[in-house]
Amino acid sequence: MTKIPLDNPLETIRLDDENDALVIIDQTLLPNQLKYLHLTKLADIREAIYELRVRGAPAIGIAAGYGAYLAMKNSKAKQYSDFYLEFQAVKKTLSTARPTAVNLIWALDRLESSIQKGISSPLDEIKQALLEEADSILAEDLRTNRAIGEFGLSLLKPSDGILTHCNAGALATGGYGTATAPIYLGQELGYNFKVFADETRPLLQGARLTTFELTRAGVDVTLLCDNMAATVMQNGWIQAVLVGCDRVAANGDTANKIGTAGVAILANHFNIPFYVCAPSSTIDPQTPGGAEIEIEQRRPEEIYKKWYSQVMAPESGVKFFNPAFDVTPADLITAFITDKGIFRPPYGFS
Amino acid sequence: MTKIPLDNPLETIRLDDENDALVIIDQTLLPNQLKYLHLTKLADIREAIYELRVRGAPAIGIAAGYGAYLAMKNSKAKQYSDFYLEFQAVKKTLSTARPTAVNLIWALDRLESSIQKGISSPLDEIKQALLEEADSILAEDLRTNRAIGEFGLSLLKPSDGILTHCNAGALATGGYGTATAPIYLGQELGYNFKVFADETRPLLQGARLTTFELTRAGVDVTLLCDNMAATVMQNGWIQAVLVGCDRVAANGDTANKIGTAGVAILANHFNIPFYVCAPSSTIDPQTPGGAEIEIEQRRPEEIYKKWYSQVMAPESGVKFFNPAFDVTPADLITAFITDKGIFRPPYGFS
Repeated sequence: MTKIPLDNPLETIRLDDENDALVIIDQTLLPNQLKYLHLTKLADIREAIYELRVRGAPAIGIAAGYGAYLAMKNSKAKQYSDFYLEFQAVKKTLSTARPTAVNLIWALDRLESSIQKGISSPLDEIKQALLEEADSILAEDLRTNRAIGEFGLSLLKPSDGILTHCNAGALATGGYGTATAPIYLGQELGYNFKVFADETRPLLQGARLTTFELTRAGVDVTLLCDNMAATVMQNGWIQAVLVGCDRVAANGDTANKIGTAGVAILANHFNIPFYVCAPSSTIDPQTPGGAEIEIEQRRPEEIYKKWYSQVMAPESGVKFFNPAFDVTPADLITAFITDKGIFRPPYGFS
Repeated sequence: MTKIPLDNPLETIRLDDENDALVIIDQTLLPNQLKYLHLTKLADIREAIYELRVRGAPAIGIAAGYGAYLAMKNSKAKQYSDFYLEFQAVKKTLSTARPTAVNLIWALDRLESSIQKGISSPLDEIKQALLEEADSILAEDLRTNRAIGEFGLSLLKPSDGILTHCNAGALATGGYGTATAPIYLGQELGYNFKVFADETRPLLQGARLTTFELTRAGVDVTLLCDNMAATVMQNGWIQAVLVGCDRVAANGDTANKIGTAGVAILANHFNIPFYVCAPSSTIDPQTPGGAEIEIEQRRPEEIYKKWYSQVMAPESGVKFFNPAFDVTPADLITAFITDKGIFRPPYGFS
């Protein structure tokens, strides 16, 4: 298997332990400004997750891990039980920031296990264990992305046209991305992929983030509105769809950014393979199927007001529907590209 | 058959013959400002069509008819041949403003026929005939819309959820609209339709225009991003899709606003009837199939800059794809609702 090059395309998230800060790119300012935020307060870290300053299932897992560590590092608790109670409050604060991505709760569960394992240890040692666990989440994410890149590349040919939706890129992870990992690897190997990026309304992650990071890496990328995806497929320009995911149920039903299910139906119609790039951490065997995945509903303003210089719909009399995610039924997914290999139907994750 | 009420929901376009002006709503200012433009110069009428101040296939046919009349009304020509040559230049100016909608050329062809018929008449009589022809185009459009409303309503049930894309509403026509005509009629009859309007990127006709005119008429309308259409269908909220069209080929392939083909594929996937509301004037038997329909490509700025307070994609390094229309293959169209009745497959328009 070809090894993905080791130069991280973009530093997206890190801990500044000396200064008690989580360092992230404020993704709401892209592509106009590449600004790193140094967040020290738990409330600010929660706000950054809620407002999508840091976003993408793997990245918010990493942010939650470091965020919880930083909150507990400065705990004044003297007793294990007080420390644990304090952690529970921190966990609740962070885990409720966004309900759909499983990585958020998965990362916090990992830190909780570290605390539980340390029940007989001094609190300083537990704090050190929390740091190591949070570091592991980031390090594993980088390894995971590289593995997804290598498995994914085995399904693609040079010059392929690849459609992607939202941003499952370096910015959504600790680096490389999930759906973009095969693209970055292919770029290094001269595959000359033609990438088509859905702009991804309403928050425009495709326009603002995917084009930003892919052009930075020299990838050939064409931006289109979400409603143009059928046309590029109809034109024969797309040989594969690569998307990320926020939660994969045991039966393979997959929650991802709103619009993904529609793209899957289109790909199915045109017999184009539809691949979901899924770190093991986004596979949630506890969720039997898509019907059990909670879908976050967001503010109407994101549709008709955010970004714009004036409102783009009447402010009264109109109802709005603004789900952040949708569920792609397993039967529309050609394969899952994971860090553990490629999975094809029938799916049964455990 | 129930008669559609006669009160025009919105005056969208008219001739002010005394002042030599075409009066239109500047649709680019909606929903924030309802402003009527009084256009007297041919160049301004062309610009209004190109910039979508007046848009929608039937409406631009009406605008072209009155626009050409106004230009010829003030012709200084003394000879028929000079008058005809002058008309040819006017026709070229207007017909090239937008290439996809057949109504533009269809309206201008009708005026040209009037001139040809008048070859032995004084020029003043020809000018009068041009006015009558342009008036007929508007009057026929109103009758056409009412007929589409009545035929369309026969396919719908009270409380149906109806998805529509772009604006094939009163604003796209002389009044009532095409896809909205059954909705307006149903509204008068207490059908309580639940309308779902795709925002329709990049020019947001669904958000800015469809919600504007439907809420004005008291219709229950929910605005969604284009990429949410699959979800509202998946949720069982949609019983029919109603769209307009810009050109229907002889075999039934239909050009309409970009995104329509994708909606048709989704409707097909969910077994939801997909209806195209088509005035006879948009059916073009001279075009054998969709492959022969020219698709207008528009400026990239509409995707990443227009409307926004700052650019939403990197300005260099990214390619853009911005077709104004797509072609829905005939086999995805459940029926055409026309002013002459309902047509079901196999289609063969002549």
